[in-house]
Amino acid sequence: MPRNAVGREIPEEVAGKPLRPFQGAFATVPEGRKAAPPLKTIRPGEEKVLPSLEEAIRRVELADGMTISFHHCFRDGDLLVLRVVEACARLGIKDLRLFPTALFPCHEPLNRYIEEGIITRIEGSMNGPVGAFVSGGGKLAEPAVLRSHGGRWRAVECGEVHIDVAFIAAPTADPYGNANGMWGPNACGPISFSVVDSWYADKVIVVTDNLVPYPAIPATIEQGYVDFVVTVDQVGDPAGIATGTLRITRSPTQLRIAKLAAEAVVAAGLVREGMGFQAGAGGISLAATDFVAKEMARRGVKAAFVMGGVTRFLIGMLREGLVNTILDGQAFDVGAVEALREHPRHAIITPGFYADYNSRGCATYMLDFAFLGGTEVDYNFNVNVNTHSDGQLLHGIGGHQDVASGAKVTIITIPTIRGRIPTIREEVTTVTTPGEVVDLVVTERGIAVNPRRPDLKEDLERAGLPVRSLEEMKIEAERLVGKAKRPMFGDEIVALIQWRDGTVIDVVRKVAGWQ
Amino acid sequence: MPRNAVGREIPEEVAGKPLRPFQGAFATVPEGRKAAPPLKTIRPGEEKVLPSLEEAIRRVELADGMTISFHHCFRDGDLLVLRVVEACARLGIKDLRLFPTALFPCHEPLNRYIEEGIITRIEGSMNGPVGAFVSGGGKLAEPAVLRSHGGRWRAVECGEVHIDVAFIAAPTADPYGNANGMWGPNACGPISFSVVDSWYADKVIVVTDNLVPYPAIPATIEQGYVDFVVTVDQVGDPAGIATGTLRITRSPTQLRIAKLAAEAVVAAGLVREGMGFQAGAGGISLAATDFVAKEMARRGVKAAFVMGGVTRFLIGMLREGLVNTILDGQAFDVGAVEALREHPRHAIITPGFYADYNSRGCATYMLDFAFLGGTEVDYNFNVNVNTHSDGQLLHGIGGHQDVASGAKVTIITIPTIRGRIPTIREEVTTVTTPGEVVDLVVTERGIAVNPRRPDLKEDLERAGLPVRSLEEMKIEAERLVGKAKRPMFGDEIVALIQWRDGTVIDVVRKVAGWQ
Repeated sequence: MPRNAVGREIPEEVAGKPLRPFQGAFATVPEGRKAAPPLKTIRPGEEKVLPSLEEAIRRVELADGMTISFHHCFRDGDLLVLRVVEACARLGIKDLRLFPTALFPCHEPLNRYIEEGIITRIEGSMNGPVGAFVSGGGKLAEPAVLRSHGGRWRAVECGEVHIDVAFIAAPTADPYGNANGMWGPNACGPISFSVVDSWYADKVIVVTDNLVPYPAIPATIEQGYVDFVVTVDQVGDPAGIATGTLRITRSPTQLRIAKLAAEAVVAAGLVREGMGFQAGAGGISLAATDFVAKEMARRGVKAAFVMGGVTRFLIGMLREGLVNTILDGQAFDVGAVEALREHPRHAIITPGFYADYNSRGCATYMLDFAFLGGTEVDYNFNVNVNTHSDGQLLHGIGGHQDVASGAKVTIITIPTIRGRIPTIREEVTTVTTPGEVVDLVVTERGIAVNPRRPDLKEDLERAGLPVRSLEEMKIEAERLVGKAKRPMFGDEIVALIQWRDGTVIDVVRKVAGWQ
Repeated sequence: MPRNAVGREIPEEVAGKPLRPFQGAFATVPEGRKAAPPLKTIRPGEEKVLPSLEEAIRRVELADGMTISFHHCFRDGDLLVLRVVEACARLGIKDLRLFPTALFPCHEPLNRYIEEGIITRIEGSMNGPVGAFVSGGGKLAEPAVLRSHGGRWRAVECGEVHIDVAFIAAPTADPYGNANGMWGPNACGPISFSVVDSWYADKVIVVTDNLVPYPAIPATIEQGYVDFVVTVDQVGDPAGIATGTLRITRSPTQLRIAKLAAEAVVAAGLVREGMGFQAGAGGISLAATDFVAKEMARRGVKAAFVMGGVTRFLIGMLREGLVNTILDGQAFDVGAVEALREHPRHAIITPGFYADYNSRGCATYMLDFAFLGGTEVDYNFNVNVNTHSDGQLLHGIGGHQDVASGAKVTIITIPTIRGRIPTIREEVTTVTTPGEVVDLVVTERGIAVNPRRPDLKEDLERAGLPVRSLEEMKIEAERLVGKAKRPMFGDEIVALIQWRDGTVIDVVRKVAGWQ
């Protein structure tokens, strides 16, 4: 089987579809044209509001074998995916391709519908039980496909994925289909993941529990793309948005990592007027951001912009004047949802603006630095965010690839041991993000610098920071907890990990046991 | 020659291109798909800022025969069209198709470039001298094509017009191409006319005199669509935005028309909580809007939204709480530009949102009523806004067709005599908007009700308003100033007037003299 540019074996085709192997982070030069969605029209006075999902499903003629799409802006509080799949099941519709931006633990009941053949294909991130179920093999008619935020936008835009019906959970909508996530009893922040779905899907259904008089503004989703509007009792549960820790870590190990990461940023000269950075939402990232914020305040410098899943920590920086603009693609806590209404320099962006490889500019390309996580890193600085060391597919890509390939300095923060398993590997279980776009790996034991960045190594050593090799740190960790066990994989490919340009950077195989 | 649905002779083809005759306001059912622009990419670190228009023109390989596009948001203060055409002339590029949203008197120097064959085709509105020049015949290789705001968006979107290079005057832009018209020394309000150009053009050049650090927000024009950014000394002159009177008329005749129009709206029961209306910017429309505003205040009702070229009068209504939302596609005075920055319910919209026939919703379709003008009306309630009674092509369509076809009650306000010429005709010189979408014609002599609207006639008569026939009012006017002379037309077709769906509602012929 041919190997791609990170040495992974990629079959030439899967389920009869040819695969393009990953050739390097910026090797692909896109050819061809964008997808061309159908022309539509409407006459004045035509009504769009329908009383039920079932009625909408009938009206758009949703049928066996079709692709249905969703956003994940409610994260673990999503209610719509299951409701639609259940309605399809009731209506006898089967063999669906599910194309969410991401699934969460709340979607575990989907596994039953996979078993029953209602859902036979999934393209989208799977966080938790659905991913674990898929890892078991034999469940889906084709391997799942995982894409980054930018990669998903690209796939719709260029026609790689054709959406038959887009379902868009809208915390606020008007009867003409204008919709946003800023207002309403179940506001969730931006719902801009669905913009590309609204543009390219054959049919678009907005689902809301807060139907307001025309016009709902901002119209993140615009009337011109919306076929029908359905009202439901509750469109999603904002309490499910804040998954993960979302507080600054108190673990001494993690605090040490965060501090080292912040010090590396300072040593590299990146804390300066007009900087732009991506802040993660995990405990380490938040702590590192907090260290950076304090250094910014000390120096009296202001960032031009920050991005990331937006949390109350970034809101605080905006309010304190440490940051000029928040580019907000996704709220990661309720504080961020509320704040979106208040500040004129808190702007909603789409995944296309953020990270579309097939565009003339990504916001991620303007980043000076970014803190990112991972489940594993390896000697080549490749990062795994999708599988655990046991081989289970438990996480989506999110913006990991998009940010890493854009930021001038990409910093992976990772403890060398997690759950008594060492995280530094000779080779990661799954390559999500290639080492060529990773600059620093910061652990509690020191900072590994990608040999492609001698300039950074010099900066860090000059600042007296503990520059170390991944090999050394791996050995130290293994002394404490032993070598990691390795999963045994079967032949069956259960998922494809796409690079953001549409090539395949790795495949995930069925987990058959442990070595 | 076959006649279309308003009885105009439309040739089967012009310049080798087949024409579709107008069949009725909503007769067209669009088929096929949207245009598919080319996929593009960029690598991190790639620069877009170029030092001159000439350099940009070279970089995008602008060549003979290509189509170049512009917005008209500076109206009579536009500087970019001429600058680009001059640069093309210097570079020896000829045979260009000019595709502006609209031209104004400031563009008179273009006539020289038409004579010289630098510009051989124009598709866009021509207000004033360029239109007059084209009316003379023999100047362009093909008839000009005039479209409404919504019609132009549709034409680009469905590929009827392919833009090779879009030039976008941007009062504020960042080095990555994000751009808006809200900020900067020469802010002009929304620049959303160019959004569709940025989406579909092969190449996109943003031109600014206010290059700000990344990110410029709001990004009305988004980085992902922009190839290059050019800085110039001045991008446009906001002093040219406020063309026309832009003050409430003091003419007793016009005030009477405005008062009657407002009374008609009241009589029709349209002044009520949650109403939506379009306000024009001429002296009569402003006066009528003012009458309506006073009635709203008296009744204590609030409009859900208003649209229109936005003036300080609408801003006042927003500030006073008479209006919940302004949907702003274009600023008509500097007060409107400044106000756009202040109010969260003052929203920028695109012409697509406003009026795209090939979409699942137009804001104009949500209008309860609209005040519109015209140069002539006829017995069939057809309205001419493009030519004068002397046959000269002197005005664009603007949103006239879009609004008239959407509003539940479309009110044409027009004095029966203008410049000693009667405006009510048996047949208008040019049909811009068909009578089927016009409900009332209000003059200083009374209100004519379209026979299609017996309900309105009843409302108006019950309210004691002077309902009269167009014929009667025409005869009275002719008693004062005599019958209008009629232009003699040559055979040559100098312009096509498109209906918003892409069909041809009328043609404009060369003016050969007077009868």
